[in-house]
Amino acid sequence: MFITFEGIDFSGKSTQIELLKDYLVEHNKKVEILREPGGTEISEKVRRILLDNKNEKMFAEAELLLFSASRAQLLREKIRPYLQKGIYVISDRFHDSSTAYQGYGRGIPLDAVMKVHQIAIGDTIPDVTFFIDIPVGIANERKKKKSKVKLDRIELADIEFYNRVRSGYLEIARQEERFKVIDGTQTIETIQNQIISELEIIDRR
Amino acid sequence: MFITFEGIDFSGKSTQIELLKDYLVEHNKKVEILREPGGTEISEKVRRILLDNKNEKMFAEAELLLFSASRAQLLREKIRPYLQKGIYVISDRFHDSSTAYQGYGRGIPLDAVMKVHQIAIGDTIPDVTFFIDIPVGIANERKKKKSKVKLDRIELADIEFYNRVRSGYLEIARQEERFKVIDGTQTIETIQNQIISELEIIDRR
Repeated sequence: MFITFEGIDFSGKSTQIELLKDYLVEHNKKVEILREPGGTEISEKVRRILLDNKNEKMFAEAELLLFSASRAQLLREKIRPYLQKGIYVISDRFHDSSTAYQGYGRGIPLDAVMKVHQIAIGDTIPDVTFFIDIPVGIANERKKKKSKVKLDRIELADIEFYNRVRSGYLEIARQEERFKVIDGTQTIETIQNQIISELEIIDRR
Repeated sequence: MFITFEGIDFSGKSTQIELLKDYLVEHNKKVEILREPGGTEISEKVRRILLDNKNEKMFAEAELLLFSASRAQLLREKIRPYLQKGIYVISDRFHDSSTAYQGYGRGIPLDAVMKVHQIAIGDTIPDVTFFIDIPVGIANERKKKKSKVKLDRIELADIEFYNRVRSGYLEIARQEERFKVIDGTQTIETIQNQIISELEIIDRR
């Protein structure tokens, strides 16, 4: 099964991914966790370009194509081989991030974004995607608390941008059955239980 | 005017680009020479990933998207601003390289390659493209003479691949009026004269 997590930064994705991994391992599943951009030697090199504060002159189209290049490599080098072996793959971000950030956020036409997805991932769409939704204001509160952490290029972008990204995610949820919106302002335990319930529903199908 | 040069490696592109630049400068034109992949800070970083021998596990789709990302950045950061100022831009490789190498050479469907071009370059198509055509055997002869030069990842690929790339270029020539095939086995001076004649024809239009 191919599971992806989406959400703006500080939504709590990483915590939930770790908890879900523990749950699946306890239930005797083999699990691999991957993160985007990155996850392969080539993709990590692309990640360094994407997240480098010095590259602030990057145009949206270049950004979309770099994220997609990293994804194309990760998919063929790791995700597809893992899935073929029956391993559960959990990815921290996948193609919906590009739809939300470069499409809805930076304004690249959605049909163009979809065409790039087609080349980068073909028909390997996640079985289920958990979108951990929090208001941008709460993300900023959490960010400030962690302010010792150096913010990367994309995290430094403005609040209006994040509002467009969040609306974009909610729009994807209206269109895609696999895309589950989880209220990220709930307790860690409540969120975890909702994720596991959704997975159990899918498993019973 | 936007002029691009295409051809397999060792076709003599660089020599002709320098000669054309000299000619244009003598005729009081402002000229900028760019090379692909590269030409901007971000694109040069992408270039390093693309040409690194260690990245031999790179999948064709990732390669196409990386070249296109580099191109998208170069186009918006340099080529379009130069063209708007009336500067002659000569690029050593551009989108036709991806059509020939990743499309015809590596087998990515051409309609997918065209869609990526659409996002990377939009409507900024070269005014004229000079394809310096040499048989792959002659390219290899020239390569051996220069054998002290360390070959990069793409140059190490096999002869059949280069034959597909060359056929691809010739196919583009059949479809695109702007794409001029120049016999690269002629003397440097003859080639230069042909290029200048073509440019004069375009200028008179």
